[in-house]
Amino acid sequence: MKVTSRQIVLSRPFITERGARLHQPEVAFEEYGRASGPVVLIAHGGLSNHHAAGRYSDEDPAPGWWDGLIGPGLAFDTDRYRILAANALGGMFGTTSPRTLDPATHERYGPRFPDITLVDIARFARAFLDELGIEMIHVVAGPSMGSLVALQMAALYPEDVGAVVAVATAGRMPPSGMAMHHLICNALSMDPQFRDGWYDESRPLPAMRWVAQMMRVYYTHDRAFHRIACAPVADGPEAQQQRSEAVRRFLVGDFQLDARDRDPNCLIATLRAINSYDLGRHSATYEEGVARIQCPALLMNIDTDGEFPPEHAEEVAAILNARRPGQASTRVLRSDWGHLGCVRELAQMNQHIVSFLRGRQ
Amino acid sequence: MKVTSRQIVLSRPFITERGARLHQPEVAFEEYGRASGPVVLIAHGGLSNHHAAGRYSDEDPAPGWWDGLIGPGLAFDTDRYRILAANALGGMFGTTSPRTLDPATHERYGPRFPDITLVDIARFARAFLDELGIEMIHVVAGPSMGSLVALQMAALYPEDVGAVVAVATAGRMPPSGMAMHHLICNALSMDPQFRDGWYDESRPLPAMRWVAQMMRVYYTHDRAFHRIACAPVADGPEAQQQRSEAVRRFLVGDFQLDARDRDPNCLIATLRAINSYDLGRHSATYEEGVARIQCPALLMNIDTDGEFPPEHAEEVAAILNARRPGQASTRVLRSDWGHLGCVRELAQMNQHIVSFLRGRQ
Repeated sequence: MKVTSRQIVLSRPFITERGARLHQPEVAFEEYGRASGPVVLIAHGGLSNHHAAGRYSDEDPAPGWWDGLIGPGLAFDTDRYRILAANALGGMFGTTSPRTLDPATHERYGPRFPDITLVDIARFARAFLDELGIEMIHVVAGPSMGSLVALQMAALYPEDVGAVVAVATAGRMPPSGMAMHHLICNALSMDPQFRDGWYDESRPLPAMRWVAQMMRVYYTHDRAFHRIACAPVADGPEAQQQRSEAVRRFLVGDFQLDARDRDPNCLIATLRAINSYDLGRHSATYEEGVARIQCPALLMNIDTDGEFPPEHAEEVAAILNARRPGQASTRVLRSDWGHLGCVRELAQMNQHIVSFLRGRQ
Repeated sequence: MKVTSRQIVLSRPFITERGARLHQPEVAFEEYGRASGPVVLIAHGGLSNHHAAGRYSDEDPAPGWWDGLIGPGLAFDTDRYRILAANALGGMFGTTSPRTLDPATHERYGPRFPDITLVDIARFARAFLDELGIEMIHVVAGPSMGSLVALQMAALYPEDVGAVVAVATAGRMPPSGMAMHHLICNALSMDPQFRDGWYDESRPLPAMRWVAQMMRVYYTHDRAFHRIACAPVADGPEAQQQRSEAVRRFLVGDFQLDARDRDPNCLIATLRAINSYDLGRHSATYEEGVARIQCPALLMNIDTDGEFPPEHAEEVAAILNARRPGQASTRVLRSDWGHLGCVRELAQMNQHIVSFLRGRQ
């Protein structure tokens, strides 16, 4: 499927929860499927982008990250639905963010970009859909941060969201995940070249190279490391040294590419927003906040995910099903990859989503 | 229990597996209990030291890290045993390491310190005991790296080791753990002030401060973060922000102390040694290598340990019990703390070790 990345400017300023005003907000997005079909909104992960499916050209080494779910006859059937994937507010791939120009100053926002919350990201996605004249969202879906945005939208706009599919998810950000995000932010801001966010954009921040390695360790399970580094190496006196070297190569490989695509200010803004995520924020209790979600929900966490283990999906489902039995379904995805399974275990996901949506025509 | 840190110089040079010669090797150690009792050797964790029990003075804020296991009537009963805890080769607390002076040059070894393996650390511990005229080791015990050293010694000297107690352990270093170690080494060596290991010793390396934070995240389970940051905070609009801030404080607190005690070259040498650990290294197969251990073994891993989950203890025990039924016992320690449980869950450990040793009088 050949796709193009598009850009629009919203006709109204966006006002953050804390009252900051973003003028002429831009949104980078892609669109797949039937222009007149029911709308499916795909929300991406924290370090990801709006290129959820297809290829820009035949030379692309890989398609979008959920290409195995988006296409003719697939879970998000392009013969049926109008599928939109937008870059999140604060993201680094074209949407208004620390990287984009502030129309008031004609300089990049940089560290002056206002603090945003996960609720802001959800509201901004809604503003994007409003701009396209879309009121009803048949399904909102996503992995990782995308799943949090999906659940948040279902809670913010319960009458307008028909169903939610959340992969590698939770009802509020777990504290160990918050710790990892603080770690990343600290690594970047402690880099002498960070300069309070006014770093030289023309070359990758040294700390970013290291952060890219760390994320590889954190988001990859031991079983995947075993496949990469241990299974190919037979026992023997040099075996452990070879395994150690294979691990090291996995860690540092292609980091140049990673570093180029990762803007420190955007990463910090995004991770802080993720840390703010708590469905209970605007309610008297957490449970009441979760229960604002009225639509059917499919929650799929990965058995080896250290950041969002299955118990977090179970918790949200239990709260929903206590009030509306059968509203929420959970599935445990089997993966060697840990959190990265949310963009790798597409066959399993496709099957579960097809079943889920079949019941929701 | 009042204790003192002592130092001896070995009467013979130590020769590493790779053939490097360390002259006048020094060993820092502590001794507890009955001078004439059966010998218990305590091996410490990778970032830890030989201060396993007691206090140097009444003003010490805390005792040694296994104080709850070492004392009158405790698992390692000071009324019965002669208990020795030595700083490992390459460690930063007084034993020959990158920090100590090379007698040949009268300068610190620094990055010229030879590469050492986990086998070297085990052999060096043996050389220390030889110097004290000790042949038979009644029990060798330790957490984390100490458990690897303990198992390695039991495999190297099967006739001289009476029993082994290994906490948070494995038969070879898991690849995700190797990845974490590479990460730490990379963070340090990528610091511009590292200068190939010739950093200014008088002040902490900037990257070390950050590495200390990262280790806090990696070795602490989400449940412990929950106790620290979430349980004390009631639901509400500012709750998540307060939790995020509590997590951040835990991450950065007391890092000055951490950084001062952690020498980058020593850390790198130690982590590389740990990565080399593989009981199968000198045997035709891994299983044969593990089976060199002939003594009774108690293997206790922690349910929430991401680095050494219980399956690693089960694997070693299964290999041993296949050849000598009943040789190995495993216990799963329950902890909110993840890997850090290996120095926190002392009550559980004490009970299991007492039972284990009772059968081994």
